[in-house]
Amino acid sequence: MVKRKTNSPARRNTSATRTHDHVIGIDIGGSNLRVALADTSGQIVGKWTASTKSTSSPQMVVQQIRAGVYQLLQEASLPRTSLLSVAAGAPGVTDRGAGVVFATSYLKGWKNVPLGQLLENALGVPAVVENDVKLAAVGENWLGAARGVPSFVFLAIGTGIAAGIFINGQLVHGADWVAGEVGYLIVPGTPEAPAKPGSPGPLESVIGGEGIRQSWLHSNGERGSKRIQDLTATGIFYHALTGNRRAKTVLERSARILAFAVYNISTVLNPSLFVLGGGVGTNGPLLAATQRTLDPYTQPSRPKLVTSALGPDAQLMGAIRLALDGAKVIVD
Amino acid sequence: MVKRKTNSPARRNTSATRTHDHVIGIDIGGSNLRVALADTSGQIVGKWTASTKSTSSPQMVVQQIRAGVYQLLQEASLPRTSLLSVAAGAPGVTDRGAGVVFATSYLKGWKNVPLGQLLENALGVPAVVENDVKLAAVGENWLGAARGVPSFVFLAIGTGIAAGIFINGQLVHGADWVAGEVGYLIVPGTPEAPAKPGSPGPLESVIGGEGIRQSWLHSNGERGSKRIQDLTATGIFYHALTGNRRAKTVLERSARILAFAVYNISTVLNPSLFVLGGGVGTNGPLLAATQRTLDPYTQPSRPKLVTSALGPDAQLMGAIRLALDGAKVIVD
Repeated sequence: MVKRKTNSPARRNTSATRTHDHVIGIDIGGSNLRVALADTSGQIVGKWTASTKSTSSPQMVVQQIRAGVYQLLQEASLPRTSLLSVAAGAPGVTDRGAGVVFATSYLKGWKNVPLGQLLENALGVPAVVENDVKLAAVGENWLGAARGVPSFVFLAIGTGIAAGIFINGQLVHGADWVAGEVGYLIVPGTPEAPAKPGSPGPLESVIGGEGIRQSWLHSNGERGSKRIQDLTATGIFYHALTGNRRAKTVLERSARILAFAVYNISTVLNPSLFVLGGGVGTNGPLLAATQRTLDPYTQPSRPKLVTSALGPDAQLMGAIRLALDGAKVIVD
Repeated sequence: MVKRKTNSPARRNTSATRTHDHVIGIDIGGSNLRVALADTSGQIVGKWTASTKSTSSPQMVVQQIRAGVYQLLQEASLPRTSLLSVAAGAPGVTDRGAGVVFATSYLKGWKNVPLGQLLENALGVPAVVENDVKLAAVGENWLGAARGVPSFVFLAIGTGIAAGIFINGQLVHGADWVAGEVGYLIVPGTPEAPAKPGSPGPLESVIGGEGIRQSWLHSNGERGSKRIQDLTATGIFYHALTGNRRAKTVLERSARILAFAVYNISTVLNPSLFVLGGGVGTNGPLLAATQRTLDPYTQPSRPKLVTSALGPDAQLMGAIRLALDGAKVIVD
């Protein structure tokens, strides 16, 4: 699966004895921080998790990461010098070139954070930083539902909505690093007014997890038990399968709006595949209803939808892949 | 501007004396056929035009092209052997890899036409075939409004609507060669039903030239002189500037729909630039109204609009560029 490039300038030690070389992949989420240690074949040899809820300042998160990395190395009986590189995903607009996270509404106080530099200072190895949804696309392209597919769209639908877009084997970043911020799409059924900075985009405001929940509460009025009132988007969609009329209405409306979003992205790019991820995006009833809505839309091409193969590990696997790329390890 | 690659396998004669090397660019339109002869610096040395109205079968068009090419060579006192390669643009879905025009509603009887092979047989040199709007994007990227811009969208609005999309310096073709067929976009104000095969897409059915004219006739009822009734899209938009209320309504509605289309494409790809082309796309009042509508849409990024610098020559220049690429002439 993996071959080492010989004489690579990025390798700190070209001796053939360095079979203990490893990389670190990091997924920084709004609730959890996940760190994975992998060997140069991409096999995960250890995972470490912490909460980011009370400790979300960039400096504290980097200290957490450092503690996690060293713990993982220790548990694997590896010296610190066996670490070649790290890559981290952040839930916001990220300039991969400069290693800077511009903004994220999921972590308090994160604005223009030089995360790449902070990680390199803390760990002493090269660090790559990327938007988390783009990382998930990298993961799905490497080992998941879009394995080896050069042009596809990974569409993550959870609280927010964003896409990681591959064209001809390359991630699309855009002129301002906001390519794929499709939570801002405007289609029939979404608000038409401009989104305010820091607020959810038109599309995610209606079919992101919270938008769906609001739509449900609104349609429900005071009806139903507290358990019914408190359903999440996923719960509401499964509730629709029991025959509940109001839940069915929310499901059908959500599917129709999602279908227009998928159709429009497909019409612009004609990708081979859409990979749906995130808690809402991988919901069975929503996927089935969306596919049903899309079926008659055959012109100019028929979008093909599948669900994520890696699930919540997609970002982490994408991070490991970028760390391997950063270490100039050739992975087939 | 141009340097010849030495020892190129595609060059039939590597002798330094071959200063008379030339290429041909061809633009096959629904009404007109245009052929241009250019030297290896890309300078046009002759143009030839014919009508395709009565002679649109692929074989007849290729015979017309052959006649035009030989006439141009003769007028320039060049031997037939000085022709290195040709490239042609067709107004329909085109598989550049196979040199096949799948379908076009602008030329009767064109279905799965192996245009590349037909041209190579007729002219005895390598031929490249590309969709005309994608060719126009190549032209604008080479010498026009997007010169040297690696990621931009050329948006052609005439009778139909389509885009030529560049990402990281590469044209985007899509899995089925239909990337950029944005006449099919569905946004607030367009029909929401699936387009029928062979019919205009939702977006072009309302803001393509004919859609705008229908909207004008519909809003006008029986009012106005025949001259007013018979206005084209361009005429209607300029009529709006005279204060005509109904023309203003058509203009504002068209601009709002175009703004949503541009905004959505921008939200997916975050290109540096939109270059507007085509008779409707380059209309001053429409561009101004669209820009005004887009102004408050700053999230996730602000789309930047300019008009085509090459106008109707964009396709022809793109064809010349691809012919030069096909002849392995290095153009900076």
